[in-house]
Amino acid sequence: MQKILIANRGEIALRVMRSAREMGIKTVAVYSAADRDALHVRYADEAVFIGEAPSNQSYLSGDKIIEACRITGAEAIHPGYGFLSENAAFARQVRNAGLILVGPSPEAMEVMGNKLSAKAAAMQYNIPMVPGTEEAITDITEAKRRAIEVGFPILIKAAAGGGGKGMRIVDTVADFEEQMQLAASEATSAFGDGSVFIERYVSSPKHIEIQVLGDTHGNIVHLFERDCSVQRRHQKVIEEAPSGILTPEIRKAMGKCAVDVARSVNYTGAGTVEFIMDSELNFYFLEMNTRLQVEHPVTELITGIDLVKEQIKIARGEAIKFRQEDLRISGHAIELRVYAEDPANNFLPDIGTLQTYITPKGPGIRVDDGFEQGMEIPIYYDPMIAKLVAYGKDRPEAIDRMVRAIEEYTITGIATTLGFGKFVMQHDAFISGKFDTHFVKKYFTPEVLQQDNEDEAEIAALVMQQLLSTAKTTVAEPATAPSNWTKSRREF
Amino acid sequence: MQKILIANRGEIALRVMRSAREMGIKTVAVYSAADRDALHVRYADEAVFIGEAPSNQSYLSGDKIIEACRITGAEAIHPGYGFLSENAAFARQVRNAGLILVGPSPEAMEVMGNKLSAKAAAMQYNIPMVPGTEEAITDITEAKRRAIEVGFPILIKAAAGGGGKGMRIVDTVADFEEQMQLAASEATSAFGDGSVFIERYVSSPKHIEIQVLGDTHGNIVHLFERDCSVQRRHQKVIEEAPSGILTPEIRKAMGKCAVDVARSVNYTGAGTVEFIMDSELNFYFLEMNTRLQVEHPVTELITGIDLVKEQIKIARGEAIKFRQEDLRISGHAIELRVYAEDPANNFLPDIGTLQTYITPKGPGIRVDDGFEQGMEIPIYYDPMIAKLVAYGKDRPEAIDRMVRAIEEYTITGIATTLGFGKFVMQHDAFISGKFDTHFVKKYFTPEVLQQDNEDEAEIAALVMQQLLSTAKTTVAEPATAPSNWTKSRREF
Repeated sequence: MQKILIANRGEIALRVMRSAREMGIKTVAVYSAADRDALHVRYADEAVFIGEAPSNQSYLSGDKIIEACRITGAEAIHPGYGFLSENAAFARQVRNAGLILVGPSPEAMEVMGNKLSAKAAAMQYNIPMVPGTEEAITDITEAKRRAIEVGFPILIKAAAGGGGKGMRIVDTVADFEEQMQLAASEATSAFGDGSVFIERYVSSPKHIEIQVLGDTHGNIVHLFERDCSVQRRHQKVIEEAPSGILTPEIRKAMGKCAVDVARSVNYTGAGTVEFIMDSELNFYFLEMNTRLQVEHPVTELITGIDLVKEQIKIARGEAIKFRQEDLRISGHAIELRVYAEDPANNFLPDIGTLQTYITPKGPGIRVDDGFEQGMEIPIYYDPMIAKLVAYGKDRPEAIDRMVRAIEEYTITGIATTLGFGKFVMQHDAFISGKFDTHFVKKYFTPEVLQQDNEDEAEIAALVMQQLLSTAKTTVAEPATAPSNWTKSRREF
Repeated sequence: MQKILIANRGEIALRVMRSAREMGIKTVAVYSAADRDALHVRYADEAVFIGEAPSNQSYLSGDKIIEACRITGAEAIHPGYGFLSENAAFARQVRNAGLILVGPSPEAMEVMGNKLSAKAAAMQYNIPMVPGTEEAITDITEAKRRAIEVGFPILIKAAAGGGGKGMRIVDTVADFEEQMQLAASEATSAFGDGSVFIERYVSSPKHIEIQVLGDTHGNIVHLFERDCSVQRRHQKVIEEAPSGILTPEIRKAMGKCAVDVARSVNYTGAGTVEFIMDSELNFYFLEMNTRLQVEHPVTELITGIDLVKEQIKIARGEAIKFRQEDLRISGHAIELRVYAEDPANNFLPDIGTLQTYITPKGPGIRVDDGFEQGMEIPIYYDPMIAKLVAYGKDRPEAIDRMVRAIEEYTITGIATTLGFGKFVMQHDAFISGKFDTHFVKKYFTPEVLQQDNEDEAEIAALVMQQLLSTAKTTVAEPATAPSNWTKSRREF
């Protein structure tokens, strides 16, 4: 494999190209009209223009991407995440064109891309699922019997439903019949179908996922967990590894489940098995993502393994060189997704130009980004500016470094999630590890950012300043000091 | 300890401030007239002007620095490296002012600051020294007897000498008498004194040093070695950890010696014990540096320990929280000192403005610097621009990442050691680990940089380009491709 085309943009395109360069592999970028000046285009050895800004005219066009391989002689395609990365039809198209996709087989993508077939595959290995009914129920006695079997609290969901209609959380068996009737009648009037599913209600859920790697020689290993419970708009925004709450036994059990899920589809490449975990640390299979995750750097930092290099090596047929027992966790890593979003306005995407853009440096800080000062955030794509990753010998040090790095990170011209990230890092629930996916809903209001917003406004007027939120004090001219050297310095 | 003054400038001042901030400690910068706009001044919570640009009027003025503590209320001083960091008189002055120096006692500095007393202290613990005569010899028979004892090859050095006069390397006993006579007569005519010292000639020396930490409770541990053999003008320029050539047994033996040397002066804080090592891996004590080393980041990366935080904790009286057996080496780290120097012109310092200054990012890369684009490198101080540090799971990966990062690092307007660094990383002797302190003399000529220089010239004309030495190729317009999307792109 001499040359690889990266069918993506932004930070992940750069991220993949860096590993390819380190392996001595030439890189080809593709780009849309909105990305003519993007860093990934400059970084690559070659670049091919593939169409207008909207994704379906460029980054989602499998035909154009395969044609770009043909004209550049690229033998393989790394799809990054998003776009075509989990598209089984594209994977098949790549295979048929005689090219290598850096990723799993189209067959594995297909099975895991559908909730029912994914569940069916996982069931072969007795992977725990959220307990509940497999089929829709209408009979109230039968429903109650199943609810008792499943265990309270339970969730009643309209079989035909969506949008929360016909949904009821029931805490005790005494309440069941009344709530079931309400749910069924709501479902009937909303969807014309009163049948429901019953499943265990996970009241304080954590999102825990396991990184796996499989090769074409049948080896599958896991690289431990990531805790991605801090989410806004049901999307991850802060991820960490390891999780602060897992015991070694549960880690091992989850790892084994994840490897089994991967084995159920003869998985090759890097993938992630996602679980939901309740407050008693019971975990249940959710789904498998058949690609590199946004949050893969935290796993790289705690294991020392470059996941992109492993993906490429697997794609060219090499066996994984380490065994499960060779892997261990060193230190702790936290990632903050720095989005061009306004946390004060329900995290709505913001657009504009990065008037000031200074990234933090120093021990334990990694910034994966795709922008530089003066660039615009295009409206067409995901509004992520960067991934700020902090690594420390333990969780408290990783948090301290993250706060320090957030304070160093200077962005003006656009609203970002930096201040939100600082709020989370300094919140007792996060520090103690006692948080779940409801963190943002429970604790976050725009008011908590007011102080940071005021600082930001001040800083916007003081372009090029390095520190976001540290008041600079004045050193008073001391009467006793020689007048030629001590000097008050009003910092900014 | 609420507030700490950093009696230094540039990257190390920023480095120390970052750790202090992470610990919740306020920072005070001091600065000279040449550093009014320096990053360390902007980064600190407070800043005090302490005089004109020449060091003896500012950064070497103990009085002014102590006064700066008084007016800002700083309770402690971190001296960094260089400047006052190994000045026992200053350490005493700090103590007498009721302040805390983040560093060892003045007594330890004094003993280790003098070659003879350092050797005497180390001798209590039977630390290996380069074998040789303790006293000057004139008698040729006696000299020969001692030479045989020491073992060939030996070095004859004029006792009164310097500058290589009266110095002879003797390979075999058969040559001894003739060479001794020549050395003695040369010494007599040069210095009026024909007496000589005899010591083992270390013909292919490596510079290996051991990082130690000692606390005020009597605990001393070592944090393994650094190999600093790649030097220019007898000064380190590339350092790595661990060394590619040490066996676990030798590592352990050297670590024990380093701890013993530190114990001989009840050492507190971070220090480094330097050894010379011959090609048979025999090691001999050279000296102890009683401060943080420039190259400390490579140790931080392989151990996960923040040395500046440890220094501060020790200075406030805390015991080291880990024992020797808790420490282990993870991965491999290499540092390149990016100097404003011209490798094509005997590494003479260059001056000027950083017209383009873009630092590399991505997995395993840490840049400790003190500059940003548009700044000038002041002529008054050490011409180091940055420390580029690459970390990988093993040495080959660290080298690959270093090369990739050097290619990303874009500096125009000033000559640097970046191209030299790339030359070293790609040299067989470095890759194989078979190199010594003669590396530069043996292998480096300005011509090897010519290709890189041409690239640099091209890039200087193309400001803001990210990649230093990668040729961008043109994607030819294919006849068969739809004309609306494939587009030749002439990169730069």
